[in-house]
Amino acid sequence: MPGARRAAGMHRPRPPPLEEPPALEDQDLLLAAAYVSDAQYNRNVPFETSPQAIRLYYFYNHWAMQAATYFFICVDLSLALFEEPALFPLPFLVTSIAEVLCLTAFFGRLVHFAKVTPQMVFWKDTKNICIMVTIVLTLVDLIVYGILEALNVYGIRWSRALRPVFLINFPESRQIRRAFRSIRNTLPDVLYVFLLFIFSVGTFSLMALKLFGDRGLKTVEGSPYFTNILDIAFELYVLVTTANSPDVMMPAYEFNWWYSLYFITYIIINTYIFMSVFLAVVYNNYRKHLKNEIRTLAYLKRRKMIEAFNILKVKVGTESVVKEAQWRRLVKVVAPDISSSHLELLLRILDEGQKGHVDKVNFLRLPDLLNIQVITINVKRHPLEAWMPRVYQSSASLLVQKVVRHRVFVWAYDVIILINAIFIALDEKNPFISYAEWLFLSLYIIEILLKLYTYEPRAYFGRKQFWNWFDTLIIIAALVATVANTTIQSARKYNSQQILDIVLILRILRLLRVIVSIQRFRVIVTTLINIGPTMLTFGGLVLVVYYVFAIIGMEAFHGRVHFFGPNSTSPDALTCGNSALRDSAFARGKYCRNNFNDLGSSLILLVELTVVNQWHILANGFALVTHQVAKLYFIGFHIVVVILIVNIFIAFILEAFFVAYSLEKSEVETAIEKKIQELGVGVQEEKVQDGRLIENMDAKDSGFIEDNKKEDLKGLYFRIASKKYRTVDALLQQMFESEIAPEEEGPSLEEILNFSPADIYPKNPSFENSA
Amino acid sequence: MPGARRAAGMHRPRPPPLEEPPALEDQDLLLAAAYVSDAQYNRNVPFETSPQAIRLYYFYNHWAMQAATYFFICVDLSLALFEEPALFPLPFLVTSIAEVLCLTAFFGRLVHFAKVTPQMVFWKDTKNICIMVTIVLTLVDLIVYGILEALNVYGIRWSRALRPVFLINFPESRQIRRAFRSIRNTLPDVLYVFLLFIFSVGTFSLMALKLFGDRGLKTVEGSPYFTNILDIAFELYVLVTTANSPDVMMPAYEFNWWYSLYFITYIIINTYIFMSVFLAVVYNNYRKHLKNEIRTLAYLKRRKMIEAFNILKVKVGTESVVKEAQWRRLVKVVAPDISSSHLELLLRILDEGQKGHVDKVNFLRLPDLLNIQVITINVKRHPLEAWMPRVYQSSASLLVQKVVRHRVFVWAYDVIILINAIFIALDEKNPFISYAEWLFLSLYIIEILLKLYTYEPRAYFGRKQFWNWFDTLIIIAALVATVANTTIQSARKYNSQQILDIVLILRILRLLRVIVSIQRFRVIVTTLINIGPTMLTFGGLVLVVYYVFAIIGMEAFHGRVHFFGPNSTSPDALTCGNSALRDSAFARGKYCRNNFNDLGSSLILLVELTVVNQWHILANGFALVTHQVAKLYFIGFHIVVVILIVNIFIAFILEAFFVAYSLEKSEVETAIEKKIQELGVGVQEEKVQDGRLIENMDAKDSGFIEDNKKEDLKGLYFRIASKKYRTVDALLQQMFESEIAPEEEGPSLEEILNFSPADIYPKNPSFENSA
Repeated sequence: MPGARRAAGMHRPRPPPLEEPPALEDQDLLLAAAYVSDAQYNRNVPFETSPQAIRLYYFYNHWAMQAATYFFICVDLSLALFEEPALFPLPFLVTSIAEVLCLTAFFGRLVHFAKVTPQMVFWKDTKNICIMVTIVLTLVDLIVYGILEALNVYGIRWSRALRPVFLINFPESRQIRRAFRSIRNTLPDVLYVFLLFIFSVGTFSLMALKLFGDRGLKTVEGSPYFTNILDIAFELYVLVTTANSPDVMMPAYEFNWWYSLYFITYIIINTYIFMSVFLAVVYNNYRKHLKNEIRTLAYLKRRKMIEAFNILKVKVGTESVVKEAQWRRLVKVVAPDISSSHLELLLRILDEGQKGHVDKVNFLRLPDLLNIQVITINVKRHPLEAWMPRVYQSSASLLVQKVVRHRVFVWAYDVIILINAIFIALDEKNPFISYAEWLFLSLYIIEILLKLYTYEPRAYFGRKQFWNWFDTLIIIAALVATVANTTIQSARKYNSQQILDIVLILRILRLLRVIVSIQRFRVIVTTLINIGPTMLTFGGLVLVVYYVFAIIGMEAFHGRVHFFGPNSTSPDALTCGNSALRDSAFARGKYCRNNFNDLGSSLILLVELTVVNQWHILANGFALVTHQVAKLYFIGFHIVVVILIVNIFIAFILEAFFVAYSLEKSEVETAIEKKIQELGVGVQEEKVQDGRLIENMDAKDSGFIEDNKKEDLKGLYFRIASKKYRTVDALLQQMFESEIAPEEEGPSLEEILNFSPADIYPKNPSFENSA
Repeated sequence: MPGARRAAGMHRPRPPPLEEPPALEDQDLLLAAAYVSDAQYNRNVPFETSPQAIRLYYFYNHWAMQAATYFFICVDLSLALFEEPALFPLPFLVTSIAEVLCLTAFFGRLVHFAKVTPQMVFWKDTKNICIMVTIVLTLVDLIVYGILEALNVYGIRWSRALRPVFLINFPESRQIRRAFRSIRNTLPDVLYVFLLFIFSVGTFSLMALKLFGDRGLKTVEGSPYFTNILDIAFELYVLVTTANSPDVMMPAYEFNWWYSLYFITYIIINTYIFMSVFLAVVYNNYRKHLKNEIRTLAYLKRRKMIEAFNILKVKVGTESVVKEAQWRRLVKVVAPDISSSHLELLLRILDEGQKGHVDKVNFLRLPDLLNIQVITINVKRHPLEAWMPRVYQSSASLLVQKVVRHRVFVWAYDVIILINAIFIALDEKNPFISYAEWLFLSLYIIEILLKLYTYEPRAYFGRKQFWNWFDTLIIIAALVATVANTTIQSARKYNSQQILDIVLILRILRLLRVIVSIQRFRVIVTTLINIGPTMLTFGGLVLVVYYVFAIIGMEAFHGRVHFFGPNSTSPDALTCGNSALRDSAFARGKYCRNNFNDLGSSLILLVELTVVNQWHILANGFALVTHQVAKLYFIGFHIVVVILIVNIFIAFILEAFFVAYSLEKSEVETAIEKKIQELGVGVQEEKVQDGRLIENMDAKDSGFIEDNKKEDLKGLYFRIASKKYRTVDALLQQMFESEIAPEEEGPSLEEILNFSPADIYPKNPSFENSA
């Protein structure tokens, strides 16, 4: 259920369609709706309030415009696939025209933004300056390279490393920018630890030189052991990453076992203690800046809603309120797709006394209310029951339904899946086993049919029934896969390899169904899926860093190492086509395919470097074919990706788990959720979470609408999207907002923008929040 | 300054010396003192209150008895060095007599404990049962093995793996037990994640079998690639630890680059996500149980103090109080070494109004007061100033003093040290360089002499002047080392290798002086030193696990792999004396020295396994010389040590940093510290921390004793030991205690002992404490 991931604040913004603009008298309404929409999606772009600017702003936020921007960013980034060194070579003219096209699009987007936002703000924003400078630099580089190309002079397309600037600096990439800010904020604190760490490595290097340099020891490969201070420092840096343990110790350890104490001390200090301290420093900074940013966002949202309220307010008695009619039009503009029953529900929540207007405190809740995914549930009888009630209600039919609902039914199918796994592991050339395959498939299909017979199909495949969808799709995929497999096998005997591979994977994925039936596994997987969207942010961050390193790597190392195919008999294949690699660990490990000869290979190589193991062999290999200085590229990559980014990733997962934990222990509900529950139109999430939705529907018990309300809402029940699906950010923001008094207007805009993380920490930490 | 590490709660308990027992009428005083002493050292042993039992209890807590216990534990554990397979072989008779001796000592200690503690408590305590069962089992094993030995039948000394039970289960090893409890508490939560992780590895293994099994691919070593499901599962488990990346991927990647996506997906899911989740789960549990234990300790301490108060109280008016004379005698019993000025200071703090008695609230503060390291500082003039005032105060002398105090002086010496480092790195056979060595040494000695000239020597080498001591000791060591080096070199030309090695290391350690002069480095190092004592707890934990695994490993693998010396030319040396290792990666990597042939080698091998890299080669090697099942030993070690213990270690460092951070931002002071400050007899720690102690002394400014008080305390100033040197536990406990109202007696003993971590968490987490 991909929709589930788009929890509060994560929707694709959907402003009103352009083709039906509201009447001109409604400029104010449009402006207020823009504020509300920004508050709903946490957008923080200051915009001009002139009618034309607002219209442009709507256009700027239109999903098509955003999609186009991302499309051009993708095209721009993927140009590296077609430029020399290319995976799919295209002439320079084609790629340069494509690049100019992209630059034009970026410039257009920037001009559009400049029209929307006040001039002062636009020119003060470094993001815009960055984009402009990058456009100019890229154009200059293109022209210079084009001329050099025409003159047949070797040139470097250095501006390609700047392309990720566009991905980072458009206002939509807020999440990626925040991740970058996390890194930048961490740097000062990390720097001193890093210097001390370097000092420690240096001191140990000197010791190693003095201890081992004159002993005449040899490494396993027969080269002199620890005789050159620079080599020692590199080897010891590699030891911090554990990649050359225990090999680097063995010659000294064989010579005298006392020397192992030197290496053990080194590892304890530099690998265990320093690396943990790096994680601690990164995590500590991540945490305090996260809270600061969330506080800023919460106050900015509050401010926008107050602006919107001030535009629409009228005086009723002593109170400023928004009239019901005005409010309805506003919501229709902000959320054009809203169903009328949903709209009525919202109004009933905000205008509890049915006074015909919404007061300020309630008005401020609107964006949260819009962000709550409200799902309407039709309580209907099973179609078979309606169609042939006597058969469906017969005792045999009821027995079937009872069996299907029983726990043992689930367990029986778990056993079947496990037996299936064993069969898959066995040799499939045995005809008995390939027949068994069909047996298993039929069992699975029977299971689904039985479930559809027992449960109401539309509810079973409801929008939020993630696990039912998951289960069914896997079985269908397995069915398709098995049929395809048999067809291909009989037709072409293992010829179409890639289709076959996909088929194989699909068949095995059915084992994942076991997860569905074990509650504890489902909880863990749900948490991981919940973390998903933010992990994609890290994906963006990693992509940017990988791209820059890949471009630099390709410029520095392409063509130095060649891969001759898996079964090449060429003598050059043993040295990857470069005699400098003769007898190197790189060539012996058959690492020729790990090269920078195109973008794809470069990215895979960078993944291997991220995993760390054997990175020193790769680094040594590329140093041999170029220069020892090349090792700095690999050390730099390690520092940036492993010490900073991987640690931030771990910090993020730790934080996500703690927030999830503290929420698990308690009920954090916004005022709105409480109101929905009070009105009795909500269905408890927990009750429908464990797959027994339909039983609740049938029983018509607890938590359902009382009759008088049911009339109004025409047999519909509302369900609040599960808290389980919300992101850490959204949860933290919600918690913070629930602590701001509803009347509070918050600090001034100036103050909000200058929040510092230090302000958040209480002067006297208590036992509760200290650790 | 090692004393600094023994911060609050970490002193070696020192009950009154036995030779001078107080008068018999003072049974009550002794009992009260026992309670106070237990509160001071956080000891939680319930003891009988009969006069004889109390006397026995004092004897039980005597440092000599504790030292003897630890001595026998050490002897018992180190027996493994002398038993077959032995590092230093001794006949079975000798080791078995030593073991029986140790067991007798343990039994004696246990009997002593049984006399002290109530019978009911003794028999309910699993710790005691554990020790008794282990003693019996060890005796049985010894007898059986002795008989088998006499009959020349091969036997296994299995009970040796139980020896760490003694280390864990004596009441003194509270810290190690707590670390074990952390692990045990984590297990249920980790288990489900682990099962899901195993399921994931299994599913990927099946996929790999289907994808690669029939392709006829070969590994780099020429063996078939991914054809057996068990081998695949092992290889994929190794990939989670990253030890065989990217080698395990290369054959498939060379065949078709699409297959790299399989491995990248695998690594993202299993290495990055699952391993982070393990850390998160372990950390989360560590945190909540830590807080729970600290709360329990704090309440138990409070209860003990109330007991002590109730014993000594007398009625004065409506109030229950302890008379001053009684209080003095109590303190003399609890802390016999206390100086009379220190005692007066404590009394003045607790009996502020000088009413001649201490009330309950103040009485409860006694253990904290005793735990505060109060250092008396004599403010004296420089001896030279006293001896020849005119010379010392002459303008030339004052200039020298000014220069030495100037920052540039420090910087100049930093530069000298760095130049020294370069000289060390250069070849020392060059005579110019060995002369330079003497120049540097003289420069360092001049520096120390100048400092002693400028600062008052007794203050410069005060008990808490860690960095001054550090600096001076390093220079003295370097001086000794250089002299020794020259002597040895001229006398025997590099013959005494080990002395020379130590000399070399000492010479290089002088570079550490740079840390002293960079404030930020000092802060980081101080934090790390602060964490030291608790890291030793982890040392104990690791020792226990290593010992058990080493004993099992020795029984299973000893004698299978042989090391023939570094320069052996024997053909067997290439296969480590075992033909099963022919052509294995183990033999090719020259790993023969990594064996289980004695305790030392086993422990070094286990360290290598903890570092993880190449562990699969070691595991494969030992599986080749025994059976494939042997891999389970190595996988088990990885799960226990890397997934559990290393993660708890990281959790501990993270927590220590957060506590340090939240304290850095604020001043957490106990009421007592405030009192000391109020009385004006304290010296601010910060003022003396940065090495400028003497300047403060000379200036006689802020924070010093006012004149009337100075008279009483005879020119002494008191300093509170730095907060920076306190442990995380002590800090957290202090924070919690400052939040209990001084009058509060806390929950009942029953309740305290049944605290659950869930109680700590507030029902409605706030933004502050949620993350």
